Amino acid sequence: MPNHRSFVIHSVAAARMNAPDLGLLTDASVVIADGKIAWVGKSSALPASFNDLPQLNGEGKLLTPALTDCHTHLVWAGSRANEFRQRLHGASYQEIAEAGGGILSTVNATREATEEELFAQSLPRAQALLKQGVAHIEIKSGYGLSLRDELKQLRVARRIGAELPLKVSTTLLAAHALPPEFENNSDGYIDLVCNKIIPAAAAENLVDAVDVFCENIGFSRAQSERVFQAAAAHGLPVKIHAEQLSDQDGSALMAEYQGLSADHLEYLSANGIAAMAKSGSVAVLLPGAFYFLRETKLPPVQALRDAGVPIAIATDANPGSSPLIQLPLMMHMACAFFRLTPEEAWLGVTRNGARALGERNQGEIAEGQRADLALWNLSSPEQICYEFGINPLAQLWIDGAAI
Amino acid sequence: MPNHRSFVIHSVAAARMNAPDLGLLTDASVVIADGKIAWVGKSSALPASFNDLPQLNGEGKLLTPALTDCHTHLVWAGSRANEFRQRLHGASYQEIAEAGGGILSTVNATREATEEELFAQSLPRAQALLKQGVAHIEIKSGYGLSLRDELKQLRVARRIGAELPLKVSTTLLAAHALPPEFENNSDGYIDLVCNKIIPAAAAENLVDAVDVFCENIGFSRAQSERVFQAAAAHGLPVKIHAEQLSDQDGSALMAEYQGLSADHLEYLSANGIAAMAKSGSVAVLLPGAFYFLRETKLPPVQALRDAGVPIAIATDANPGSSPLIQLPLMMHMACAFFRLTPEEAWLGVTRNGARALGERNQGEIAEGQRADLALWNLSSPEQICYEFGINPLAQLWIDGAAI
Ligand SMILES: [Zn+2]
Ligand SMILES: [Zn+2]
Repeated sequence: MPNHRSFVIHSVAAARMNAPDLGLLTDASVVIADGKIAWVGKSSALPASFNDLPQLNGEGKLLTPALTDCHTHLVWAGSRANEFRQRLHGASYQEIAEAGGGILSTVNATREATEEELFAQSLPRAQALLKQGVAHIEIKSGYGLSLRDELKQLRVARRIGAELPLKVSTTLLAAHALPPEFENNSDGYIDLVCNKIIPAAAAENLVDAVDVFCENIGFSRAQSERVFQAAAAHGLPVKIHAEQLSDQDGSALMAEYQGLSADHLEYLSANGIAAMAKSGSVAVLLPGAFYFLRETKLPPVQALRDAGVPIAIATDANPGSSPLIQLPLMMHMACAFFRLTPEEAWLGVTRNGARALGERNQGEIAEGQRADLALWNLSSPEQICYEFGINPLAQLWIDGAAI
Repeated sequence: MPNHRSFVIHSVAAARMNAPDLGLLTDASVVIADGKIAWVGKSSALPASFNDLPQLNGEGKLLTPALTDCHTHLVWAGSRANEFRQRLHGASYQEIAEAGGGILSTVNATREATEEELFAQSLPRAQALLKQGVAHIEIKSGYGLSLRDELKQLRVARRIGAELPLKVSTTLLAAHALPPEFENNSDGYIDLVCNKIIPAAAAENLVDAVDVFCENIGFSRAQSERVFQAAAAHGLPVKIHAEQLSDQDGSALMAEYQGLSADHLEYLSANGIAAMAKSGSVAVLLPGAFYFLRETKLPPVQALRDAGVPIAIATDANPGSSPLIQLPLMMHMACAFFRLTPEEAWLGVTRNGARALGERNQGEIAEGQRADLALWNLSSPEQICYEFGINPLAQLWIDGAAI
């Protein structure tokens, strides 16, 4: 495959992602010029002016936008595999917490790790996603929970974006859990987040969005709003972890702030759905956490559809509730568990995944979009939601460059 | 890595699979001589006589027996992805069946495929398992449902074993479903299976074991017994698909015939467990089908443990109920859904997987065992049951040869 940024791929089935049916165009050609999509249409209608560009035979394969994983926590240190093992051997959550397990074990390991160590441990996770066809990942902080360590996590995320060909969007999630230093003083910690951490991260240009874990075991709606106000003061868009375990009306709060997305949403109410539909925010569903936590409450998929809220899917890659670094598996699980259609699963990791990160110039195969493209050994889009185990990626381009 | 069949791997953590705790031995060395394991122990105790062999540094990595996938249907033609898509778009099972979907669509495609086409479509599935660290797979027939096409499937399975370095065990599952030619005449079809297909497959040396789908929507206990008698007459061991959707007491029948395994087992009774414990048969659990069919009834894991029935895990790779060609994912799901411990998951794809295929000279790291070994980029065995998405296989040896 040529490694230059202007060429024609002909004889593909192009899933343009510009319609609910994916806008599939067979016998299609796509022209890439200087890393952008310059033309897409039937091969028979390809203008002669593109004949001089290098021609690539797609052999009838499926061509889609490259994938976006719009919700990950993939920068962390340590492993909680042994904790999982202990649970399967009968240890209670209480016993594991008393033995130093749970999220604080990840916080401690992440704090103790140098930036270099954290980078070395996290890089393979991003590389794994790249091999699956992912060209854009979001990475959240939230295991530092201190000024120093939140910034360290974000720096590592930026460095992953700099050293790999994929694009990284960073999200500050300092309001992820209460650090031990602030036990019984969650408002004090929110003060630190709003007055120190957000301003410092913004000043260092380390942050593209701000997120909060709004939950009865996380931060309240009022605390979440304080974080959103601080974000707004720095011109940063917001996201929210909401309605995963209970309905805190966090999604509606996010919508009030014209946020990018609300994520998880098993307990999302009609009120939240209406608010999101109005604000144009994305509903990010996370089947990996649903699977790993053995949840039974399903997100309100039909109501989201009916309201026209765009649905995205992501890995939620994290060491506690979704240790799954596999985006196509999330497409599979979104269909199996949540009964998304394959078309919805595809839109969820392309156009809508991009929208959940505020990107409108990627995620479709259309003139002017970034040439982040994936060619698949698949004869139809739904196959990726059905047969799992053989990596179907034939070729990935990011910014028009073959990876 | 050296490609000869006599060498020493030193500095590994060897999970010998000779005990419920996996018999993990750190700072271990394993000596391979002519494709067999000649010695295993602490590196410090390695006899000087092995010093002349090529030495390989395991760098502290985990060494296990290579994996066995003891239940697959991976030789099939066609795809049912579109059928799955239609279901997610609201089509009923009835509508799909009327449109030619369901198992008969796979039967028709498999019958229409030439041996060459069937081989070409099936080979990548076996290759995918090989890349995951699998050295031995079982492949069932059961999509031919005629003398000609069952033998064709078995020949393709044998050819996969001949062309890839992995070992293939074949299982005749002609009694998988009722072919359309025998509608309302299931006894007539069982006559064909017993009087023609089993003898012909045995005569051509195409079959290592015989299996039956014993279920209210499959074949009765009495019909299953007729198949077992025919198998016994040809000296072939038996297996059974049993108690997946209801309790037909098929596992106890299999145990009466000293069968190798009963597979699925969500509805297995105390009687079946006692019979299996007595016969020494293996309980094969198939979390992929549980996942994909959205089952909620769990197999009786604790009762199997209490009775000392060995538990294996397999992909059940098939186009209808488990289109998952991923054995480590099955380990993950066995822990997540069935609450197996990581140790049980490992034994399920090594020692007990081998036992389910009647193999006693593989599946452990012990003197005299085949040198089918896998080296993993893992610092502890439980990691493979926790973090999924990065292929942790560092090196695979089959029969002592580096793959
Ligand atoms: Zn999350
Ligand atoms: Zn099966």
